[in-house]
Amino acid sequence: MLIIGERINSTRKSVQPAVREKNADFLIGEARKQKDAGADYIDVNVATMGEEESEYMEWAVKTIQAAVDVPLSIDSPNARAMEVGLQHHKGTAFLNSITAETKKLDSMVPLAREFGANVVALCLDDDGVPPGAEKRCEIADRLVTRLTSQGIEPDHIYLDPLVFPVSTSSDAGQAVLRTLCYIRDKYPQVHTICGLSNVSYGLPMRKLLNQAFLLLCMGAGLQSVILDPTDEDLMRLLCAGEALLGRDEFCARYLQEYRAGRLGEAPEKK
Amino acid sequence: MLIIGERINSTRKSVQPAVREKNADFLIGEARKQKDAGADYIDVNVATMGEEESEYMEWAVKTIQAAVDVPLSIDSPNARAMEVGLQHHKGTAFLNSITAETKKLDSMVPLAREFGANVVALCLDDDGVPPGAEKRCEIADRLVTRLTSQGIEPDHIYLDPLVFPVSTSSDAGQAVLRTLCYIRDKYPQVHTICGLSNVSYGLPMRKLLNQAFLLLCMGAGLQSVILDPTDEDLMRLLCAGEALLGRDEFCARYLQEYRAGRLGEAPEKK
Repeated sequence: MLIIGERINSTRKSVQPAVREKNADFLIGEARKQKDAGADYIDVNVATMGEEESEYMEWAVKTIQAAVDVPLSIDSPNARAMEVGLQHHKGTAFLNSITAETKKLDSMVPLAREFGANVVALCLDDDGVPPGAEKRCEIADRLVTRLTSQGIEPDHIYLDPLVFPVSTSSDAGQAVLRTLCYIRDKYPQVHTICGLSNVSYGLPMRKLLNQAFLLLCMGAGLQSVILDPTDEDLMRLLCAGEALLGRDEFCARYLQEYRAGRLGEAPEKK
Repeated sequence: MLIIGERINSTRKSVQPAVREKNADFLIGEARKQKDAGADYIDVNVATMGEEESEYMEWAVKTIQAAVDVPLSIDSPNARAMEVGLQHHKGTAFLNSITAETKKLDSMVPLAREFGANVVALCLDDDGVPPGAEKRCEIADRLVTRLTSQGIEPDHIYLDPLVFPVSTSSDAGQAVLRTLCYIRDKYPQVHTICGLSNVSYGLPMRKLLNQAFLLLCMGAGLQSVILDPTDEDLMRLLCAGEALLGRDEFCARYLQEYRAGRLGEAPEKK
């Protein structure tokens, strides 16, 4: 499972002031903590900086990569901030994100091609948020066609089925799972990705729902995920899920995590 | 999700002596505890009593049902003990289990028909344990054909794909999940069932693996499960899974369990 750490996002209360003050220690600490906890990429979102987003993005990318050897997910709705982030990034970045909206495609796809980035592509188009799985699968088809025709390698495409709260629609979880299965079966070369936490919005015990949803998504073929890797309960369930899905030969990784004490504190009797 | 509580099994160290002594209080306590924790049926397995199994089965069935209003799963490899258990059972029981082995079919299917029982049917035949999903799906086909041709209603059939340890074969989990998907898609009227704990045999932190596997199986269509309903971590993940799969309209059950304090002790901030 490819893991993108989601903690560096200026909409979070603890992050906003640190970013505003360009607190390098905080930023580096957050990046290092997530890498150590198992993140393959670190998401960087400074979109609340408004007009100054590009300047802050440049600072964030340079600051993190000068201190921590980790690739980043440049997370912005703004093409200029995206371009600046990708320009200063070392290695292969994630471009997070495009949609099937005409404006997004026109502004972002050339950047993805220019910088050879992996692309998070949301199943959303000019008609807005699709309620069920059928429409999302149709948008997934269009995204794959459009992106590959514009020179993006299938292996660089990460389709996100869009996760909505199950509190507002009982079908919200199933719509994601069905879309994931569709993509897995139809496009073996293309990847899937999603965030988890939207699913539990408006309900109590959100972590419990996010944990359960991670496993359901993994079973439906999810290959990459945007989450908080410092959430130990979530990460140990992810590790167990990989072993159960046959993605961890001889359960080697599972046993390694166990021996490192990362599967929980009190080993039970066998 | 239909839940069969697995605790009354004389192979368990704490159960064996209590059964041997015909300790009614213990038996009733175990049954009541599991029903209160959410079990729809209580499994009764006294197979270690050997020659006296039938006598103990009669005692167990009568003792539990005299005190607790709950249907049972009569769990025995022995046709005589099975018959005695079903004879003394009030309401619709589970017959646990048959296989596609010729002897089992000949001895057990007439009992299922006579007593109108639900039937747990393991995907196993005279050739022994099938390693992959393909052979299990083929056995599932044969079981459905044979059972329905002998007068068992599809709605009374609960196919068990057989769970084996992922420690001995990395494919063990996937074989179960693929078989569940196959049955769900091909036989909408037939049910699926499995136990969880075999999957984690030989590995540390077994509860963690069992939790993750429950969610993976639910996503693959599992409709009923044999587990320990007093395992609170497992039960709250089950409850979350039902909400996420759209089987809990308006998350009503989830919210009810939350308010009753059964989703965990420390409600987090929303």
